Amino acid sequence: MRVESKRAQLEETIGPLNKGIGALKEVQIASCGWNLLREDVSLPAAVLYRDKVAHNLRWMQSFIDTYGVKLAPHGKTTMAPKLFEIQLQGGAWGITLATAHQVQVAYAHGVRRVLMANELVGRRNMEVIADIVADPEVEFYCLVDSVANINQLSAYFRERGLRLKVLLELGVKGGRCGVRDDGQLDDVLGALGQSPGAVELCGVELYEGVLKDEADIRVFLRKGCDLTKRLLQEKKFARTPALISGAGSAWYDVVAEEFAAAGFGDAVEIVLRPGCYLTHDVGNYETAQRRILESNPIAREMRSGLVPALHIWAYVQSIPEPELAVVAMGRRDAAFDSGLPRPALHYRPGRKAPSGIPSYWEVTKLMDQHGYLKIAPGDDVRVGDMVAFNISHPCLTFDKWRVLAVVDKKYDVVDLVRTYF
Amino acid sequence: MRVESKRAQLEETIGPLNKGIGALKEVQIASCGWNLLREDVSLPAAVLYRDKVAHNLRWMQSFIDTYGVKLAPHGKTTMAPKLFEIQLQGGAWGITLATAHQVQVAYAHGVRRVLMANELVGRRNMEVIADIVADPEVEFYCLVDSVANINQLSAYFRERGLRLKVLLELGVKGGRCGVRDDGQLDDVLGALGQSPGAVELCGVELYEGVLKDEADIRVFLRKGCDLTKRLLQEKKFARTPALISGAGSAWYDVVAEEFAAAGFGDAVEIVLRPGCYLTHDVGNYETAQRRILESNPIAREMRSGLVPALHIWAYVQSIPEPELAVVAMGRRDAAFDSGLPRPALHYRPGRKAPSGIPSYWEVTKLMDQHGYLKIAPGDDVRVGDMVAFNISHPCLTFDKWRVLAVVDKKYDVVDLVRTYF
Repeated sequence: MRVESKRAQLEETIGPLNKGIGALKEVQIASCGWNLLREDVSLPAAVLYRDKVAHNLRWMQSFIDTYGVKLAPHGKTTMAPKLFEIQLQGGAWGITLATAHQVQVAYAHGVRRVLMANELVGRRNMEVIADIVADPEVEFYCLVDSVANINQLSAYFRERGLRLKVLLELGVKGGRCGVRDDGQLDDVLGALGQSPGAVELCGVELYEGVLKDEADIRVFLRKGCDLTKRLLQEKKFARTPALISGAGSAWYDVVAEEFAAAGFGDAVEIVLRPGCYLTHDVGNYETAQRRILESNPIAREMRSGLVPALHIWAYVQSIPEPELAVVAMGRRDAAFDSGLPRPALHYRPGRKAPSGIPSYWEVTKLMDQHGYLKIAPGDDVRVGDMVAFNISHPCLTFDKWRVLAVVDKKYDVVDLVRTYF
Repeated sequence: MRVESKRAQLEETIGPLNKGIGALKEVQIASCGWNLLREDVSLPAAVLYRDKVAHNLRWMQSFIDTYGVKLAPHGKTTMAPKLFEIQLQGGAWGITLATAHQVQVAYAHGVRRVLMANELVGRRNMEVIADIVADPEVEFYCLVDSVANINQLSAYFRERGLRLKVLLELGVKGGRCGVRDDGQLDDVLGALGQSPGAVELCGVELYEGVLKDEADIRVFLRKGCDLTKRLLQEKKFARTPALISGAGSAWYDVVAEEFAAAGFGDAVEIVLRPGCYLTHDVGNYETAQRRILESNPIAREMRSGLVPALHIWAYVQSIPEPELAVVAMGRRDAAFDSGLPRPALHYRPGRKAPSGIPSYWEVTKLMDQHGYLKIAPGDDVRVGDMVAFNISHPCLTFDKWRVLAVVDKKYDVVDLVRTYF
């Protein structure tokens, strides 16, 4: 209820200046009767397929549940509170975020359990988080990996009369953040020991995605489990059960396996945080999913996998050469850092339904506002036709859009999803 | 006046959920007394330097004025109506934009002369533009390069009882949009001849930035001039003077030279449309600027050039290895498609002023929310320090931010600039 009313309050108006929507005075989008194929939407537009998103939501929650672990989807991917809400209603334990700003967005929309899988640095950022932590309904965790940061946090939160719950971040050499060796570990534990009442250690965190090789990842995960057991034994945790968290969107199966196999029992709550599963993609995460469906026994039994649930729709605007269709979609509209968008559907306004596209159609280049689509001479394609593109890397696609259209199977626009990047 | 009141109306509230600002209830930012170095701003933040932006504004307008041509800065770069306003007040002829959505944003903020340097495709997009063109104060142009598009535009605007002014887009083989040869040209001119009263030819447009070699660019520009002269002679233009437009942010000097040298006299208005000069960068446009300052006689006489006027400020959040500082800035915050951000300033809260950075500090990798900054063992850098980064490619940096902070020489935050991507 609280979530609902908060959201309604913040989202009652959709401004007229949102890319991919066009002017809209009402949040009651369903009553507008808009249909994507009838050209009611100003393209380019980012389009979420309601049924596919719902399928992916259920698939991941079911996968996670089978392992008896918890899901805190990484919200940085979508930064869409409406999607956080369906994730929480679907069974998620909380929402993971990366920055103070992102936490503020989630909190303002009613999210009350947040894992900030990152260090909290800087006076203003601490202020933002302290204002949220002061709410007794809030359960918030962030990461620490250095004495300097712990001392800064300790000084700030002590002065505010607040307690900050933290997880110790474990890293690997050549990786990102996180303590690398026993010396750093001892220093961090020492600083935490000096901060009672202000900074409280509640668990252990790692991000296996900085490694590329499964064997290395398993070694790293076991190291995290061993550290958690040691700190449990030494009674270093202020929370019962303690927390252990890992997993991006590529290796969540391996993390679930290793953490579940560690035999923590009731002493530890295991929290995984993939973020890209809701929309999935046809790039790195499709590759990862293929591996998971082949090798993971639970995924194999589920008889289905994640499906791409996000398209960028754009017009063909020029066919100046027999093998080139220029489409009105560019780097301003879709991720391009791990593979270019891939054409998926072709539609000519007035026709009954979209059709598939020839296998040789391919985006060869993206400029800021244009895409080069390779076609063959004589293909039945015209200026004014619509093309839907699958994407690689949902994170860097979502952040191009302030509003995404949600469509049903008939391409009726049934909802809008706002983002807060 | 009109622009002012429009803007005030749209921008009276800055939401509390804007990245890089933190909660803010007042648009009177100057009265908040915020200072970047006092950590009043939630980092990462995109920061514009007021004096440097003003310098760049004057430099480009002065350069353009010297050639006796017109400036219609490409607004897609910043999508910031407040910046459009200073560009117009500084002497710009109009604003260039790339999509119907972008035109809508500019129009809603009071811009009344727009060159949409792109084709207009799709029913909803035509509707958006028609609603704007219906305003008798508006002067709007878009591009055409195909019979199919002209027929679609003609049918739509005729039904609405409106006239659409267009420029014929000239292209090159292997380039983007635009007619390639005489056959296509004749077809397009034929279709325009069939659309009297609905679609009116007002000039010629090209984008030389699809070519890389100066000699090729000059050939292409002369082709554009020759075509304009031919169409003038054949009385094909519905506008007096006719328009000719070219120039991205890399070759505007060469375009100014060639178009000015064509000897159009009063018969043609020359409109150039660089977009990146306001903030400049330390990537492709710095390279382009170096060539211009070396080779262009007018730029040489101006005794100064464009300066980088946009920094991303971020905290050092972890120093887990002696040669690695992890900074809280990633692909969510800065462009990475034509060079990574480059560290420019280092500041420790409490110190008097930022200092320069060692020449060997370098961003080696960006993840979504993190940057890898290469340092040397023993460097005086700590968790909690602030680092300012210069950027490459302003367009793909601006579109990561909804609000940018404007600072003066003391780093006081004196204004906010909102974007509408």
